[in-house]
Amino acid sequence: MGNITAELLTIGDEILYGQIVDTNSQWMSAALDAIGVKTVRKTTVADQEEDILEAFAQAEKRADIVLVTGGLGPTQDDLTKPCLAKYFDSEIAINEQALKELTALFKHINRELTPINRAQAELPVKSEMISNPIGTAAGMWFHERDTVFVSMPGVPFEMKKMMKDLVIPKIQETFDTHAIYHRLIKTIGIGESWLSEMIADWENSLPDHIGLAYLPSISQVKLRLTAKGADYEALKKDVNREVEKVWPLIEKYVYGFDDITIESAIGELLKSEGLTIATAESCTGGYVAHLLTSVPGSSAYFKGSVIAYANEVKTNQLSVPESILEAHGAVSEETIRLMATNVRKVLNTDIGVATSGIAGPGGGTPEKPVGTIWIAYADKDQCVTRKLSFSRTRDLNIKYTAANVLNMIRMQTNGKTNNSTSSQTTK
Amino acid sequence: MGNITAELLTIGDEILYGQIVDTNSQWMSAALDAIGVKTVRKTTVADQEEDILEAFAQAEKRADIVLVTGGLGPTQDDLTKPCLAKYFDSEIAINEQALKELTALFKHINRELTPINRAQAELPVKSEMISNPIGTAAGMWFHERDTVFVSMPGVPFEMKKMMKDLVIPKIQETFDTHAIYHRLIKTIGIGESWLSEMIADWENSLPDHIGLAYLPSISQVKLRLTAKGADYEALKKDVNREVEKVWPLIEKYVYGFDDITIESAIGELLKSEGLTIATAESCTGGYVAHLLTSVPGSSAYFKGSVIAYANEVKTNQLSVPESILEAHGAVSEETIRLMATNVRKVLNTDIGVATSGIAGPGGGTPEKPVGTIWIAYADKDQCVTRKLSFSRTRDLNIKYTAANVLNMIRMQTNGKTNNSTSSQTTK
Repeated sequence: MGNITAELLTIGDEILYGQIVDTNSQWMSAALDAIGVKTVRKTTVADQEEDILEAFAQAEKRADIVLVTGGLGPTQDDLTKPCLAKYFDSEIAINEQALKELTALFKHINRELTPINRAQAELPVKSEMISNPIGTAAGMWFHERDTVFVSMPGVPFEMKKMMKDLVIPKIQETFDTHAIYHRLIKTIGIGESWLSEMIADWENSLPDHIGLAYLPSISQVKLRLTAKGADYEALKKDVNREVEKVWPLIEKYVYGFDDITIESAIGELLKSEGLTIATAESCTGGYVAHLLTSVPGSSAYFKGSVIAYANEVKTNQLSVPESILEAHGAVSEETIRLMATNVRKVLNTDIGVATSGIAGPGGGTPEKPVGTIWIAYADKDQCVTRKLSFSRTRDLNIKYTAANVLNMIRMQTNGKTNNSTSSQTTK
Repeated sequence: MGNITAELLTIGDEILYGQIVDTNSQWMSAALDAIGVKTVRKTTVADQEEDILEAFAQAEKRADIVLVTGGLGPTQDDLTKPCLAKYFDSEIAINEQALKELTALFKHINRELTPINRAQAELPVKSEMISNPIGTAAGMWFHERDTVFVSMPGVPFEMKKMMKDLVIPKIQETFDTHAIYHRLIKTIGIGESWLSEMIADWENSLPDHIGLAYLPSISQVKLRLTAKGADYEALKKDVNREVEKVWPLIEKYVYGFDDITIESAIGELLKSEGLTIATAESCTGGYVAHLLTSVPGSSAYFKGSVIAYANEVKTNQLSVPESILEAHGAVSEETIRLMATNVRKVLNTDIGVATSGIAGPGGGTPEKPVGTIWIAYADKDQCVTRKLSFSRTRDLNIKYTAANVLNMIRMQTNGKTNNSTSSQTTK
């Protein structure tokens, strides 16, 4: 059982110049991670022979497996194949199997095999051909001097199919890989540094084979536990034992584990309680509704919204009296309370949430500066309001407000179902 | 005037393990490209001291500017600062300006400065502090041995603000970069390959010092013209001459230039015509309203929306008779027409737009498969409807639908004002 490492090497000017986002390498490292191969480096180099050869040499020193993507097209600026041949000091010749598959592919799409495309069946003789049933560039597998180099096309769907069907199984045959187990604990409503202080003793007591990382995003922090060792099932037990230990400290901030999002966690809560929801949005302009409806099947609990940007809409659709708007303003506790309680009546739902604030950059006053935002949650028993003060850009003020509303829904709905739900989520 | 090169160095296990996509580095290399700095390498390394130090040394050899992101949090797994201090053999001490800004930030959000956060104001003494007004981790600028190292937080919005406001200007002061002039022509409603055929002759006739790139996104293609040379003003003239040449071919698809978004282009159109708008959204669940209200000052023309996810809301709030919903379904021309025409009456606006469709993954039928979507535009004179058929994921079905609605608003509103507005946008 080794500690198998990989380097991902992407070849292409278009990524260096910022013209396309490299989504391949995230997918590849997740696929390697799932079989216990650790990605130790990601490198992107230009379409330049010298740079490519230097990157090959450095990668060979660092990693057991070097996965090269891109630069396999039929044109002159595609240098991966000649560079690999040069690097491994190999002749290039027609690979009969590659030619057979390429001929079949062109027959299938009713095109003639041009000389340029025929040249794609020429491969370094020191490599094994890796079939590409859905594209014209075959992959290559080199196993020289204890390192494996794999070359794959950069086209995402061709690479993914080749990697999943052929490269991953071949890596598992060739190397005796580590077991690895990850768990993500997802929190909302607490900052990274407060969370870190809160769990410092636990963090310091983690066994050596378990690592912890903090992954922050808007109003959220993910805690990632990673265990490495010989036996997958044992690692899983070790990690879950640690999750149980830290649980009492952070329970109230946790909305779920692993792949779940806060939107879908709320959806599960609402569905399990048979509750429906509506939003009344001013400053978030529909963003809360968008998040709630981004979840497949959200029509089971989300009925609709009134986006009340103009005061006239607050009055006519949500029955907020003009006198209240005049006396307290649209950004006030009085207004937000009526928006939340009335939207649940108007749209006939169990829960109503509301937002009203000054997202900026304009519209601020000394008394209510940009970033002053009221949010509210109402159900049949209560109406909870909260004032937020942000000092961010318009876009972020909207996103942080929405995250706070989602957390408010989680806390209030969770409160309803009390221990049954929260103990459920610990398993 | 030099040929200035940069390397982007990202530090963080979460990117190597495939848990997050690195979108920073695309944005950064595009920003560098815009000031004539060429990105020659992108590297991602683990949160390991040895790896980080090795990557610093290799990057220093290759590039004039090394932009380091990530690893600046307050926790134990954040190694960028100690590694930079070690690499440049520098003491770490409290930076008074950083402490002042951090204290102000914590005061603003009404939190106490904890020892862990206070430590974020400690910086290597050989570095210049770079302010981070929206986060707790300051940036660092080292200029040693003819190379500039810049360390920035990995949180995208903090990095982008810091880079745009402070790092890019400082790079331009420090290095003598090429003169470069970019112009973006923004189109919507035409695919990349059709656009490319339409302007092929013009593209082939471009002078050598002007390059053209196609940057596609959801329903949009940006054409980027880039001119390089000695004199900025001359480049500007050359590029704008080419824009005038291509204009007649693509005029009807162009909504603007450079930084303008389709949302803000529509906002300008509506404002200049004194028109107000409301949305009635089913399958887009508030996403169209969110896009419209993402524009500062949108309250001048956007009054509100009815998000009618449940049929009951379509009937009660938008007066779509139950008989219509029963006879034709919610996803039908009959329903969408009533949603668009009625929302403008209910919310008292000049224009009403509406969406209703099956975003998926569930809810499809043989007759109306997932991706079947109706959209409509209504004003006092007319109601235009359109059926869309997508076969994408839920998220993309929603985004493509919204883009089509925005383009429908643009075309109908532009049609109103006719030549006056379209000739205005050519300048």
